[in-house]
Amino acid sequence: MTKGVKIVTIGGGSSYTPELMEGFIKRYDELPIREIWLVDIEDGKEKLETVGTMAQRMWDASPYDVKVHLTLDRREALKDADFVTTQFRVGLLNARVKDERIPLSYGIIGQETNGPGGIFKAFRTIPIILGIVEDMKELCPDAWLINFTNPAGMVTDAIIRYGKWDKVIGLCNVPVGAMMAEPELIGKSLDELVYSFAGINHFHWHRVKDLQGNDVTGEIIEKMYSSDAGIPANIHDIPFFIDQVKKMNMIPCGYHRYYYRYEEMLNHMLEEYNDPEIGTRAQQVKQTEAELFELYQDPNLDYKPEQLSKRGGAHYSDAACETIASIYANKNTHIVVSTKNNGAVPDLPADTVVEVSAYIGATGARPIAFGSLPPAERGWLQVMKNMELVVEEAAVTGDYGLALQAFIINPLIPSGETAKRVLDELLIAHKKYLPQFAEKIAELEAAGVTVKDEIARELV
Amino acid sequence: MTKGVKIVTIGGGSSYTPELMEGFIKRYDELPIREIWLVDIEDGKEKLETVGTMAQRMWDASPYDVKVHLTLDRREALKDADFVTTQFRVGLLNARVKDERIPLSYGIIGQETNGPGGIFKAFRTIPIILGIVEDMKELCPDAWLINFTNPAGMVTDAIIRYGKWDKVIGLCNVPVGAMMAEPELIGKSLDELVYSFAGINHFHWHRVKDLQGNDVTGEIIEKMYSSDAGIPANIHDIPFFIDQVKKMNMIPCGYHRYYYRYEEMLNHMLEEYNDPEIGTRAQQVKQTEAELFELYQDPNLDYKPEQLSKRGGAHYSDAACETIASIYANKNTHIVVSTKNNGAVPDLPADTVVEVSAYIGATGARPIAFGSLPPAERGWLQVMKNMELVVEEAAVTGDYGLALQAFIINPLIPSGETAKRVLDELLIAHKKYLPQFAEKIAELEAAGVTVKDEIARELV
Amino acid sequence: MTKGVKIVTIGGGSSYTPELMEGFIKRYDELPIREIWLVDIEDGKEKLETVGTMAQRMWDASPYDVKVHLTLDRREALKDADFVTTQFRVGLLNARVKDERIPLSYGIIGQETNGPGGIFKAFRTIPIILGIVEDMKELCPDAWLINFTNPAGMVTDAIIRYGKWDKVIGLCNVPVGAMMAEPELIGKSLDELVYSFAGINHFHWHRVKDLQGNDVTGEIIEKMYSSDAGIPANIHDIPFFIDQVKKMNMIPCGYHRYYYRYEEMLNHMLEEYNDPEIGTRAQQVKQTEAELFELYQDPNLDYKPEQLSKRGGAHYSDAACETIASIYANKNTHIVVSTKNNGAVPDLPADTVVEVSAYIGATGARPIAFGSLPPAERGWLQVMKNMELVVEEAAVTGDYGLALQAFIINPLIPSGETAKRVLDELLIAHKKYLPQFAEKIAELEAAGVTVKDEIARELV
Amino acid sequence: MTKGVKIVTIGGGSSYTPELMEGFIKRYDELPIREIWLVDIEDGKEKLETVGTMAQRMWDASPYDVKVHLTLDRREALKDADFVTTQFRVGLLNARVKDERIPLSYGIIGQETNGPGGIFKAFRTIPIILGIVEDMKELCPDAWLINFTNPAGMVTDAIIRYGKWDKVIGLCNVPVGAMMAEPELIGKSLDELVYSFAGINHFHWHRVKDLQGNDVTGEIIEKMYSSDAGIPANIHDIPFFIDQVKKMNMIPCGYHRYYYRYEEMLNHMLEEYNDPEIGTRAQQVKQTEAELFELYQDPNLDYKPEQLSKRGGAHYSDAACETIASIYANKNTHIVVSTKNNGAVPDLPADTVVEVSAYIGATGARPIAFGSLPPAERGWLQVMKNMELVVEEAAVTGDYGLALQAFIINPLIPSGETAKRVLDELLIAHKKYLPQFAEKIAELEAAGVTVKDEIARELV
Repeated sequence: MTKGVKIVTIGGGSSYTPELMEGFIKRYDELPIREIWLVDIEDGKEKLETVGTMAQRMWDASPYDVKVHLTLDRREALKDADFVTTQFRVGLLNARVKDERIPLSYGIIGQETNGPGGIFKAFRTIPIILGIVEDMKELCPDAWLINFTNPAGMVTDAIIRYGKWDKVIGLCNVPVGAMMAEPELIGKSLDELVYSFAGINHFHWHRVKDLQGNDVTGEIIEKMYSSDAGIPANIHDIPFFIDQVKKMNMIPCGYHRYYYRYEEMLNHMLEEYNDPEIGTRAQQVKQTEAELFELYQDPNLDYKPEQLSKRGGAHYSDAACETIASIYANKNTHIVVSTKNNGAVPDLPADTVVEVSAYIGATGARPIAFGSLPPAERGWLQVMKNMELVVEEAAVTGDYGLALQAFIINPLIPSGETAKRVLDELLIAHKKYLPQFAEKIAELEAAGVTVKDEIARELV
Repeated sequence: MTKGVKIVTIGGGSSYTPELMEGFIKRYDELPIREIWLVDIEDGKEKLETVGTMAQRMWDASPYDVKVHLTLDRREALKDADFVTTQFRVGLLNARVKDERIPLSYGIIGQETNGPGGIFKAFRTIPIILGIVEDMKELCPDAWLINFTNPAGMVTDAIIRYGKWDKVIGLCNVPVGAMMAEPELIGKSLDELVYSFAGINHFHWHRVKDLQGNDVTGEIIEKMYSSDAGIPANIHDIPFFIDQVKKMNMIPCGYHRYYYRYEEMLNHMLEEYNDPEIGTRAQQVKQTEAELFELYQDPNLDYKPEQLSKRGGAHYSDAACETIASIYANKNTHIVVSTKNNGAVPDLPADTVVEVSAYIGATGARPIAFGSLPPAERGWLQVMKNMELVVEEAAVTGDYGLALQAFIINPLIPSGETAKRVLDELLIAHKKYLPQFAEKIAELEAAGVTVKDEIARELV
Repeated sequence: MTKGVKIVTIGGGSSYTPELMEGFIKRYDELPIREIWLVDIEDGKEKLETVGTMAQRMWDASPYDVKVHLTLDRREALKDADFVTTQFRVGLLNARVKDERIPLSYGIIGQETNGPGGIFKAFRTIPIILGIVEDMKELCPDAWLINFTNPAGMVTDAIIRYGKWDKVIGLCNVPVGAMMAEPELIGKSLDELVYSFAGINHFHWHRVKDLQGNDVTGEIIEKMYSSDAGIPANIHDIPFFIDQVKKMNMIPCGYHRYYYRYEEMLNHMLEEYNDPEIGTRAQQVKQTEAELFELYQDPNLDYKPEQLSKRGGAHYSDAACETIASIYANKNTHIVVSTKNNGAVPDLPADTVVEVSAYIGATGARPIAFGSLPPAERGWLQVMKNMELVVEEAAVTGDYGLALQAFIINPLIPSGETAKRVLDELLIAHKKYLPQFAEKIAELEAAGVTVKDEIARELV
Repeated sequence: MTKGVKIVTIGGGSSYTPELMEGFIKRYDELPIREIWLVDIEDGKEKLETVGTMAQRMWDASPYDVKVHLTLDRREALKDADFVTTQFRVGLLNARVKDERIPLSYGIIGQETNGPGGIFKAFRTIPIILGIVEDMKELCPDAWLINFTNPAGMVTDAIIRYGKWDKVIGLCNVPVGAMMAEPELIGKSLDELVYSFAGINHFHWHRVKDLQGNDVTGEIIEKMYSSDAGIPANIHDIPFFIDQVKKMNMIPCGYHRYYYRYEEMLNHMLEEYNDPEIGTRAQQVKQTEAELFELYQDPNLDYKPEQLSKRGGAHYSDAACETIASIYANKNTHIVVSTKNNGAVPDLPADTVVEVSAYIGATGARPIAFGSLPPAERGWLQVMKNMELVVEEAAVTGDYGLALQAFIINPLIPSGETAKRVLDELLIAHKKYLPQFAEKIAELEAAGVTVKDEIARELV
């Protein structure tokens, strides 16, 4: 990397790219980038052009001489890359619309990272990411893969387990959000607190201590119940039961609302689903994205616009840039990442991916051993991790029985005929991106299964 | 035991007692009983008289000279006992009515061994059984405790964990039912097959091999889908998804329907709940019991009446008698029991109670090591066992936060305000039997929480 | 097996074969054998003829019509076998002489199942047994492999781990000896006691209970210290320290003397080694064997001669016959066997082979879950099992570094130059049977390494 | 700590104290010390005076105004302490002489941290440290305990396990030495490498990567074999077998020589033992200490003299000062410490103390999850950790059977009568410091057991 760093971003046409650029520009002194390659597919060509041109404008407005390359040829881009970031979305936002609306049309949680939607996002994404890994083995065997494609935990686990590629770190913005929001609740700054996270992606808990070594988790919890703290923008504002959280003396992540306040989260989503003025999150995001790309086309815009932060995944790119800079400059920054367990969460097998507090440096993530969780959290974590393993195996093998198992043991999906129907409709709806399930899908089509939700059906 | 065996049955006034007597009479040659003590509480005095007199008639009609003692004084009965069986029901069937109707009044599974009902049965039962264990330490320290009070897994686990009493075996009739029904499906008798069970009470799976060592589980599964096999009388006839079961190549237990076919089980229960002609299972059983006790009053009845088998828990007593005889005569019979894991199910801690295939002999249960379960089953088993541990701790400590945690992580209970409401109503409804939660109950009452379901409310 | 059972014995020319025949004749009613194939190699042809002819005489003297086939063609024999027993010794007793004398010539324990000798026996045996397994996959895929070739634990583990063959049971006579000797110490018969064994081959402990469920291990230990009980014939009579054994409240196996009384065992072996009138155990056994084969040539001898019991491995064959009969007749006999752990010894990985109490029936061994061992035993068991895994991998790969690791971590071998010298001499001495180490052996020879012990050197 | 830090050093009369002072002076800017209390016992009063006066001189020569208090009253010193360091030696160097000479007089490794000596150092130290912890609970409940009294692993483990005190970190200079010596071997500085240590005190391994993420462990190993690198001053220069180390691809710690080159280490120690001009390490150190204390009496000496580095434990105090500064200033420095496992070494129970790479900050040690070790290292680590647990339990209970078990399973002690004799002599020799074993010692004395080694006997 003596001549400067080469960054490749798969899914470079994403609306997040300007945030990524901003993050790199901010860190140029410790991460001297030479060139950035934004890669996308034919379907995303137009967006790639728009956002890519905007990205180049951002660099041109900076004091640094960095060239942003745009390409549809992944292999050309990967050649000799130092860092590869993945932020692609197989099937674009329309796939997300289906992930959300099809379950909701049957009264089941429709969301792209948990429940049926998360399972299908894994089914679509894992085969693609394994292909990228194969290219990397050939074209840039020393590069780091920084994944923030969701479901980040399963994708990272599959990269290690099935891709046999260890130089990978999975990222999520949820822990960042918690660490940004909580300290001020108790009148502290982040550097006056020590955070310890453990769990898996979108299913972790954390404890906080102050610099005297005192556990202040309980104090933060108390304050949370008089504020909106720690809630990701894309999760409806529903508090945990205070009796539960006080007893566990750990702070759950925002996505735990799906598990701890299932009823209210579902009702909220159904309300939006049923209101044609609002629509599901994907529908809202499509609108935001359209606005963003309009903005990006402004030839005078050479900085990240305010509106991007409404997009939801704020801080994702920042976490990614910080991770890359920490690896490059061996900074040993505390970042919460998806990485191989190695015992950090002793309640899960040492060879599975967990999301934990880690110090990030030249050798990647060094996860901090957290110790055993209390029974209530341990049990749920174990069922969720095993559910992930079943999903990954189904994604790789295309086995329908496994896919059904994953639906049945997912605690967000009430098992039964309706769940099976949702599974079947999602298979049909995502047919184009699920070659591994082709045989079963053909069988379902032959049996006349069709997508009930009209909006989703039109997108098939 | 040289002068003959002394058996003590706590909850002796139960309608099951005649089955127990029949089981003992049948096995007298290998289990030479000297005296039987049926113990009950003041509220059950009348039933104790009726069924006790009937029990004595059964022995008098047999060739054996055995005295059946009836008493309300538990300590008198326990003195020098060889075997103590527990089949009591705290709060009688009315408690079960509440366990079923209160959740169902909010659209949540209402059933006494899984979901909210099972949790509350544990809350009521565990403190009582720990008191029995204390008496046993003093009055019959060498006796075996054979528990078939539900939830048998949690009760047995609590006896070992909190009671520090190891000479205990927990029993359930579900495995017996499977082993009675399945062999004929493939044209075999039970002694031509080798069964291996693993899991926890009401949440286990089994594999079957023939005498050539071939796995015939798949063959049985195939046959099941053309028959009603293996379904306990008190579970509505809803088949598992064949794709799921074939993939796992293990046979789930009947109670897995609550987990694998949640939607249909719930709907079925709601139908019965909403139909005043049918009512929930407890209401049906109350009717059956009334009929049984009428029969038992017939001074000419000196054998177990046919109608008892309708009662649901058939084979429970038979399993208990066989277990006692196997211990007494060191028979090494294969029986599926709740016992300390010791590694038999390596996916669970070695010191927790599991329900597994075991050989029963003079030293109690010798569990057979089953090996690790596949991910889908492993994960669910882990969440269920940890849920049990949370319930047990809540039962012993009366901690409301833990009780809430148990509700939230139980996969049969959709978390949220409704679940919390059900928890609160159940606390109030069972107030008399939950002294450990007295403070919280007082707080709920002060806040005006009342039981919504009319039938349940009248029983409070 | 409807037409009667076909048994194949690899290493059929062994002096133990008559014991095996006696065992089969005794059990003919439950194990109706049709034909027995004794297989050996060219070097053992003469012994095979002698013992095979004698074996046929034994059957001819019995009421049963069984044909004993003798062959050097292993594949011919294996065709359609029902049970394959392995009792071969690669390199015959001369290899054992080298296993014993080379270490002892440097003051290191020389013995064929523990220490350097055991490691080299594994190196010689594992590749051969894996070849047998390959033949079985092709020629008798439904057969059971009953191994009593030492080191039985490592060989059985390698069959499962590297051979991917699960229908295998490893046997050892040591537990049989304990169960035969101990009961009378406390005035009981074996069927009045319940034995629980756990550990690995030649490194296990057991506890004993009576039929009232009382632990009588301590009582047996007390009695042992006024007698010679439980000591295999081929281990010098050195008692364990009573303070140690009382504290552990388990009975170690005879081979534990090498670990618990290292100094005395070594001194005893050195005495025999240095006395040309006695010689090491292998030299003694060679003498016994010569006498036995002389006896076997007597055309009138048609029963197992008394002298065979002096041979040391008494009861091995009996255990094998009982195991085979238990599988065939689904007897569920309690036998201590080497089998896949599956959690029975939770201190070791579930997929490794352990030696434990098991019930043997139609589906093979059903190991009884023993629970965790106390720290002192747990630690040693873990180092020994891991040492076995290193040996197996070295046996399969021929990696010298691993072989050296195995020597260094084996608690019976004082690490250092002398140990390395012993390793090197043993490699050279067994050159003919260690093709996997050919490269390293050539290097050692080129460096002028030779065998110091004269007797061993002459056998190279 | 607003008014400055209060440090208490138990065993303050040690010759190491000047190094500690130097370390504190060097770090004053980040660790603003207010007062230092050096505590010792009556027997060490004179040394305390000498070294304490010298310590004050060192501070007086510095720009900082720090008062060094000297006291024999531990409780007075502990009051409101911020950090307590423990560097005491029960029985002073004479105890070490006995730990070394008594085993060596029987040809067994005599050394104070491994083998019989380490076991007895634990027996003497653990009860005392548990007393200190009790005082701390009362007098300075928020203080950190930084232990560098050996055997540091067992002592730290006992503080957590039996003392129920979690704010403790155990330190050792061995990892420091490795990290100081190795980098230059491959032409790097320490900050160009990333170290990962795992194991237990005096029994750990490490891997090294460069800033490109490449594993350079093998490269360091290669270089080591052309140099003396990485060998603590107090361990004779005996290299590991290169074939072994290359295969494991980890670098053992210096103390592994006792396990991997037992023969040579023992021979070296016997040579010194048998040479009256040299004597064992303790005898040499006594000489060095005498010289040091003579130097310390020089009223002009106000800096750490060169000669102290000959003392052996160099860097211990430096590691301690850096640890304290890292906690105080939340520096997140990478330090290798003994701390609660929490899963960092998944091959050992999560609640035991391990020695691993950790980041040290305001909340103490955050251990880095290392992942499973290869079988050869895993097994030995497990036996050693379990041996430690046995020693700790024996130290707390005074159980002779456990002490004997610890001797027998310690891989450095050849089991047998000689080992037992060494155990018995050591008990007698350390009688004054082993009240927990009083009964057994009386019994041994009554039986006439005496210490054979003359020099040791005179010190009793």
